[in-house]
Amino acid sequence: MATQKPSIPKGTRDFSPQEMVRRNYIFDTIRSVYKKYGYLPIETPAMENTETLMGKYGEEGDRLIFRILNSANYLSDFKNDEEIIAAKNAGFGAFTNKISEKALRYDLTVPFARYVVMNQNEITFPFKRYQIQPVWRADRPQKGRYREFYQCDADVIGSNSLLNEVELVQIIDEVFAVLKVSVEIKINNRKILAGIAEYVNEKDRFMDIVIAIDKYEKIGDKIYSELKEKGFSDEVVSKLQKFMSLAVEVQELYKEGKGKSALIKLMDVFESVPIGKKGVEEIYQIFSYLSQIYIDKDPKEIPNLILDMSLARGLNYYTGAIFEVKALAGSLKSSICGGGRYDDLTGIFGLPNLSGVGISFGADRIYDVLNELNLYPEEVSASTKLLFVTFSEADQEYCLSILQQVRKAGIAAELYPDAVKMQKQMKYADAKGIPFVAIVGENERKENVVMLKNMKTGEQEKVAITGLIEKIA
Amino acid sequence: MATQKPSIPKGTRDFSPQEMVRRNYIFDTIRSVYKKYGYLPIETPAMENTETLMGKYGEEGDRLIFRILNSANYLSDFKNDEEIIAAKNAGFGAFTNKISEKALRYDLTVPFARYVVMNQNEITFPFKRYQIQPVWRADRPQKGRYREFYQCDADVIGSNSLLNEVELVQIIDEVFAVLKVSVEIKINNRKILAGIAEYVNEKDRFMDIVIAIDKYEKIGDKIYSELKEKGFSDEVVSKLQKFMSLAVEVQELYKEGKGKSALIKLMDVFESVPIGKKGVEEIYQIFSYLSQIYIDKDPKEIPNLILDMSLARGLNYYTGAIFEVKALAGSLKSSICGGGRYDDLTGIFGLPNLSGVGISFGADRIYDVLNELNLYPEEVSASTKLLFVTFSEADQEYCLSILQQVRKAGIAAELYPDAVKMQKQMKYADAKGIPFVAIVGENERKENVVMLKNMKTGEQEKVAITGLIEKIA
Repeated sequence: MATQKPSIPKGTRDFSPQEMVRRNYIFDTIRSVYKKYGYLPIETPAMENTETLMGKYGEEGDRLIFRILNSANYLSDFKNDEEIIAAKNAGFGAFTNKISEKALRYDLTVPFARYVVMNQNEITFPFKRYQIQPVWRADRPQKGRYREFYQCDADVIGSNSLLNEVELVQIIDEVFAVLKVSVEIKINNRKILAGIAEYVNEKDRFMDIVIAIDKYEKIGDKIYSELKEKGFSDEVVSKLQKFMSLAVEVQELYKEGKGKSALIKLMDVFESVPIGKKGVEEIYQIFSYLSQIYIDKDPKEIPNLILDMSLARGLNYYTGAIFEVKALAGSLKSSICGGGRYDDLTGIFGLPNLSGVGISFGADRIYDVLNELNLYPEEVSASTKLLFVTFSEADQEYCLSILQQVRKAGIAAELYPDAVKMQKQMKYADAKGIPFVAIVGENERKENVVMLKNMKTGEQEKVAITGLIEKIA
Repeated sequence: MATQKPSIPKGTRDFSPQEMVRRNYIFDTIRSVYKKYGYLPIETPAMENTETLMGKYGEEGDRLIFRILNSANYLSDFKNDEEIIAAKNAGFGAFTNKISEKALRYDLTVPFARYVVMNQNEITFPFKRYQIQPVWRADRPQKGRYREFYQCDADVIGSNSLLNEVELVQIIDEVFAVLKVSVEIKINNRKILAGIAEYVNEKDRFMDIVIAIDKYEKIGDKIYSELKEKGFSDEVVSKLQKFMSLAVEVQELYKEGKGKSALIKLMDVFESVPIGKKGVEEIYQIFSYLSQIYIDKDPKEIPNLILDMSLARGLNYYTGAIFEVKALAGSLKSSICGGGRYDDLTGIFGLPNLSGVGISFGADRIYDVLNELNLYPEEVSASTKLLFVTFSEADQEYCLSILQQVRKAGIAAELYPDAVKMQKQMKYADAKGIPFVAIVGENERKENVVMLKNMKTGEQEKVAITGLIEKIA
């Protein structure tokens, strides 16, 4: 076989040991908080039947799903050349469906909904599950956007209680507190957005209104001229304008710590718009639960939760609270966590009326934030604690049973396996960040000791075998 | 959208919380032993470029590789219908290569070799890496054989020392000791197999000889008639017969604990076959290192390593030691771990002469063994430790800050989120295996206590809030 110059597919990544250790620090942190709040892990297959995924993510989403070729000779399903061309002429999608029945999962939410429906008789509801697995999207790769990336989801399904929303806010707060990233947790409610559309008498054009509001943070007052271009009347636009200035006011009150009076103000505005009022009440209830939990606590310990009425989030299936989290330090402006409540995610698979709420941490973006701000604790780089450096086969044999004792004490240790120059062995310890080296030559063997070197301080001392574990533990 | 009856692709599996906890117990055990021996984690993408994988696993392997359809409109690469049919007529493989450039990884060894070559300038050799990820094979699904399954590999690359083989034997021994599975670790050496072929004067028909020897355990003496059918001379077959009876003798000596004298006997037979002798010497050296390590140890603590000259292992790239592990209890007869030394795995990617040795644990089979023998420790099922059961919103609010304190103490705890009947809440605790329940009604609130119920014993007692954590920790 000819030599190949190896490469990996665009938009995918290898993870080196150093990257793995850092990524695992993030995953382990998220996992341990999920566990503490009673969430249980599940995993679903990388591949799903195509019909499970198609149509769940909009037209654009469908296009980004990676399809897997049928493993048998898929061409033999066609009787003759004419059938191949006929299938092709029936359209790209139709042809693809002929030769591909499986696809790679695009997110963890749809597979979770499928799982719940398939296992509904074994599940005790409310079902609190977490899931940390990669997903694949045929997006154009660019900085910070990959074709394979991890999602870290937690969802509660089968409970309407707002205590679930509260818990998810606490989880977000706790994860980022452990990771030492200051964040702002923005909350809104789809019912408030629906209320705004009703308030301006454009209930039927809900999505257009939501898209405009969503743009407000980016383009500000320009949304009004855009709405006019889309054919909204002056009256509607000026009513929205009035509402948005109220929204800004509410935001300001939040920053001053007067969230409750802001919410009461909002409820008044929605007096004759029940759905909007309901949305505000839900937010109010969440804040009031939180103040119950963090009563007597330092404001620094209270989740930094802020109502942002311009928050919309693209996904159509949200029906209640929606969340989005941004890091306050660092250069990354995009969200590092998000989520919301959905009323009928499992309906499409035959199990209607099961309300759920969930969040998803973007591990790759969190990784970028932690790298930029250099927020990894020192322990996160350590692997092997002790390396035995030797000069001959006799030295190696002398070390073997000592090495075994060190490992038996639960300490990660290694013996450099080849009889090479000391310098090369020391370089190995350096490259691997090994903090202690035990040098063993003829003299050490005779005296029944090792020469223990602390790689950080450079100090070295003779240590009896019996005292070695104590010295490095 | 119409309701769909959901299903998952043949040969794939969902893992429920209970299965996940058990599988993670296996993965965590393997991972912690790998770490203790100084192995570092890497991960590679699920998809590789097709040319990275094709031709590495033999013709049968190539057929079992899952291919991913190009994400752009792959049909637009063809100028017209005639080109499509021409590509099709050029053969199934050629057509597939036109519409698919990527494939799902088939094992972890080839991606590892690719990784080492691509990152050779950053890696300090010898490179000890472990990798625990799923792989995909388009095999016909059957009991115990899946299309998606996990491999747990460890390899050292860039070292010729037999100390690496010794270490891998120790790792295998330690993993199964922790998992409480008694095993037999079989070892052989490809050089011994080459030696046998030379010994019977059929050096050029090495693979035929190996295939016959590999079958010896299953069909015994029938291998001789099969060899004759394949055209081997009576002389060759009778020489092999002589050798195999020696192999059986060697096996017997092992079982009696006389491994060393068995090996010396073998070396004599190979006196004029240098490659065979080299193979035996390597095995001898491995045993002698092990006796050095486990000097003064109870025989029960010494790895149960046995030379089995009929062990061949299919993969062609092995050149030195080969390993295979079987459970001694339970009904599973297939191997649960295997590995070996290869001299030139990275050569195909342009980095020749890098010797390596590795092992791979079959997590799915180990899972089956542990399930059958019921070998999971009790802690492995526990998740949430305490559930708060309440009767009203006021009860819930009372519990919120207590719940927060319990979690702050690092204890996984939950509050049932909906105001439903007590029975339903208790059922939830039962289903989730939660050991403690804190019942809170009006009386408990007034007295500033909770009614703590031990779900195992059924006992319950009033506990002051201040003493709660102590009671359940």
